Amino acid sequence: MYALLRFDKTYLSILIFFGGIVMTILSQFESFISQLKLDGRYRTFIELERLAGEFPVALWHGANGETAPVTVWCSNDYLGMGQHPAVLAAMHATLDMSGAGTGGTRNISGTQRQHVALEAELADLHRKEAALIFTSGWISNLAALGTLGKLLPDCAIFSDELNHNSMIEGIRRSGAEKFIFRHNDVEHLDSLMRAVDPERPKIVAFESVYSMDGDISPIADICDVADRYGALTYLDEVHAVGLYGAHGGGIAEQRGIVDRLTIIEGTLAKAFGVMGGYVAGPSLLIDVIRSAADSFIFSTSLCPHLAAGATAAIQHLKVSSVERMQHQRNVAKLKGMLQEAGLPVMDTETHILPILIGDAHRCRRASEILLSDYGIYVQPINYPTVPVGSERLRLTPTPFHTERHMTDLVTALSEVMKRLAPDALTTAA
Amino acid sequence: MYALLRFDKTYLSILIFFGGIVMTILSQFESFISQLKLDGRYRTFIELERLAGEFPVALWHGANGETAPVTVWCSNDYLGMGQHPAVLAAMHATLDMSGAGTGGTRNISGTQRQHVALEAELADLHRKEAALIFTSGWISNLAALGTLGKLLPDCAIFSDELNHNSMIEGIRRSGAEKFIFRHNDVEHLDSLMRAVDPERPKIVAFESVYSMDGDISPIADICDVADRYGALTYLDEVHAVGLYGAHGGGIAEQRGIVDRLTIIEGTLAKAFGVMGGYVAGPSLLIDVIRSAADSFIFSTSLCPHLAAGATAAIQHLKVSSVERMQHQRNVAKLKGMLQEAGLPVMDTETHILPILIGDAHRCRRASEILLSDYGIYVQPINYPTVPVGSERLRLTPTPFHTERHMTDLVTALSEVMKRLAPDALTTAA
Ligand SMILES: Cc1ncc(COP(=O)(O)O)c(C=O)c1O
Ligand SMILES: Cc1ncc(COP(=O)(O)O)c(C=O)c1O
Repeated sequence: MYALLRFDKTYLSILIFFGGIVMTILSQFESFISQLKLDGRYRTFIELERLAGEFPVALWHGANGETAPVTVWCSNDYLGMGQHPAVLAAMHATLDMSGAGTGGTRNISGTQRQHVALEAELADLHRKEAALIFTSGWISNLAALGTLGKLLPDCAIFSDELNHNSMIEGIRRSGAEKFIFRHNDVEHLDSLMRAVDPERPKIVAFESVYSMDGDISPIADICDVADRYGALTYLDEVHAVGLYGAHGGGIAEQRGIVDRLTIIEGTLAKAFGVMGGYVAGPSLLIDVIRSAADSFIFSTSLCPHLAAGATAAIQHLKVSSVERMQHQRNVAKLKGMLQEAGLPVMDTETHILPILIGDAHRCRRASEILLSDYGIYVQPINYPTVPVGSERLRLTPTPFHTERHMTDLVTALSEVMKRLAPDALTTAA
Repeated sequence: MYALLRFDKTYLSILIFFGGIVMTILSQFESFISQLKLDGRYRTFIELERLAGEFPVALWHGANGETAPVTVWCSNDYLGMGQHPAVLAAMHATLDMSGAGTGGTRNISGTQRQHVALEAELADLHRKEAALIFTSGWISNLAALGTLGKLLPDCAIFSDELNHNSMIEGIRRSGAEKFIFRHNDVEHLDSLMRAVDPERPKIVAFESVYSMDGDISPIADICDVADRYGALTYLDEVHAVGLYGAHGGGIAEQRGIVDRLTIIEGTLAKAFGVMGGYVAGPSLLIDVIRSAADSFIFSTSLCPHLAAGATAAIQHLKVSSVERMQHQRNVAKLKGMLQEAGLPVMDTETHILPILIGDAHRCRRASEILLSDYGIYVQPINYPTVPVGSERLRLTPTPFHTERHMTDLVTALSEVMKRLAPDALTTAA
């Protein structure tokens, strides 16, 4: 620590530095972190080592160098495609053939044959004219919504109140006026759209599967409203692609309504097991995003072997339903077991099974006990990911969870819930 | 095409849809694309297939399925680490051990042992307390500047006028007031900072190597000014890490002034040959970014094998200077050859050798002829990446370009420049 005294014609001021950072700034950041800790919102990342072939079991690495196998119950590698032999084989082969990175943005030496192939595969998956890939789903929403909303003069974007952060950021970035409709509330959407000048260009942005509650939106009804006002429809299927529909095209495919959506957005990092994101839609719109989105233009492109791995996963899931069926069977089975055990599982329509805890500290504590005493890893989901008071453990069964994994989980959860019940805590105190 | 007639109590309007998109919207996007084409700014991506072991030669894929080997002269895989055996071996091994993706955000099952190791390696490389990795350098700037500027109340960010798009987006996202100083102009920076209330928190954001002109900023002088006003310093070393400094720590390391910078930002996608980005700095600030940056929190983490590959590249370049020396030798050699041939190469201090063309259409045409007639690929750099009138071919020699590659390039460039000289064109017309 040292103090720097600076004298100037117009003012005298003393700057005190700690470790090179001026004190006033340091204390701002310190109080930010302290507040997070006070609120029970400070995040400690659990260090894992995934083990291909043993999913959902992984190796947990503790702070003191100790390790232990744990059963992961909160992965979004929903189908275990991250360890699928066809995916890994494609990645190995492409690494050997084309090396690691691309060394360029898409425009400057970074467009690879594997990108073009993946984009064709994705366009076909969603029965759209074209597709465009990004380094993440987060970027795909930022780029696509940010660009479309920005290039349409005086655009109005209608956004479901529970839309993902990346869509919110894209809409914000577009500078378009935003209208938030109540979650899945088609009438509210209609009343908002009716009130906006019919001449203004409009976009309706929403998700198919909402990942924290596991509910599904009324896609066709929302499209009806959008059509009435001549709006583009933008659907985030991040938690549905690979998982629903005869070819893994998502909820829109399952319901036979892909042509009602202008743009479908997805990720390569969840059911497809790799990394990256994309949008699929009409050639013209994809060309516009490609040509205008800063976050696409000014960033190194996806590694060729990641594109090849994702292509392999998509191709496999287009023709194989085994994973989807086993997934749904396991979801139904675990849900039944949780209900039977009287655990507060939310009654979702999808593969996402949230156990409501309702308090940040208790939620965190439950997760800690599950990890330390039962070898079960399920991350607490606290604010801001979910509203205060609805803190939860979000379970995601996969085709690879066995009956034994489920029995162990239900037993452990029952015991932990008893230990942490508000009256149990009061008695203990 | 169909027309939809809609009648409403309050207004009568006719919406005409083409392929599901309302006509007014369609024509907006169509005119956007036409304008790009008119301006010579419409981008056609060159499709390549990188060949590990043959870099900088790659296979070009034409629109009609034809292929041809080309020498790539515009890659940012500056040292060819994308094909380095140690990098590829680490990636193969980790793919086998841990599979493809992580299946989670960093907080929800997505923190892997390989991330923790890479972050430690990066902190060590830049002699900082901590580091944090992202899926791209673009995101690292958005996340870090966006968060720091947002959490410091009434923050003022001083930004070099040529800063990269990702820094500009981060600053914009922060909502902080932005002051743009003239490129590398320390006095201008000082006068701007002097005019701002001394009590306000301040950040000075700049780059070490500016990638389009290849010039280097006066880092120490900028830090002097920043210190005077108690500002944090934020340095983007994306085009310098791996390439400069005894351990590849960048220009700050080369000049022995890493401790003058609060935060150093870099990419894993250029000299390190893989993909991803990072910031390194004081633990507290890294913790703040980790805890508050939306674009970090709400996105799937980097694949473990990418982290392992990047770690291998960094470790190699920490102890080996062979690549850096051969790189610099080749840069000097090519620069001499270009100058001798009378080609308009900009006189840079770095490994980036821009050939000034000064017209979008001519620049594009030169690139096309080089590709079709000479098997040489160098992408035209047009507006908005560089200002109108300074369109260029940006050459990046690597350690793997041979003397033969260079002779071929200089011969080809000389011929093409002659063919495209303004008077040659006039004569021909
Ligand atoms: C609904 C939704 N959209 C987009 C994303 C971002 O996708 P990615 O993880 O590929 O960045 C996520 C979460 O990760 C999400 O939940
Ligand atoms: C100065 C600068 N910063 C950041 C980036 C973004 O890095 P990345 O390609 O890893 O997204 C780039 C270009 O790609 C750049 O030129």
